[in-house]
Amino acid sequence: MKAIVNVYLKEGVLDPQGKAVHHALGSLGYNSVTDVRIGKQIILEIDESDKDIALSKLEKMAEELLANTVIENYTIELE
Amino acid sequence: MKAIVNVYLKEGVLDPQGKAVHHALGSLGYNSVTDVRIGKQIILEIDESDKDIALSKLEKMAEELLANTVIENYTIELE
Repeated sequence: MKAIVNVYLKEGVLDPQGKAVHHALGSLGYNSVTDVRIGKQIILEIDESDKDIALSKLEKMAEELLANTVIENYTIELE
Repeated sequence: MKAIVNVYLKEGVLDPQGKAVHHALGSLGYNSVTDVRIGKQIILEIDESDKDIALSKLEKMAEELLANTVIENYTIELE
């Protein structure tokens, strides 16, 4: 089963990488971009047939390792 | 308009960050994970009302700056 965990900074947390990309896009002439934020997309292949079990495992993984929940939120998608 | 550009390594390109996370998950007891790949998720706010124009701009941004198309693929979602 394929799972996608998106990890992104919480609102209000400074995102220097996003700011740098925003600035670079402006330099390239893309002035219609008003905000850029950059997160991680973690694509996992998980050997688990039960969707609920997979989801609960993925939540634990996100809390324990994939996201820093002090400054980051995450979403989980199962395919 | 909100746009999400997902940038991920092409098949066959070594992903050391994904490998490290895979290994760390194994150490934490998550042995059902068989593969991990890590990409970037770039969330843009774009001041553009026409979806087609926004999409064509985002494609150019991805080709020019957001993705390294030698080793990376990208997808664009508009919300």
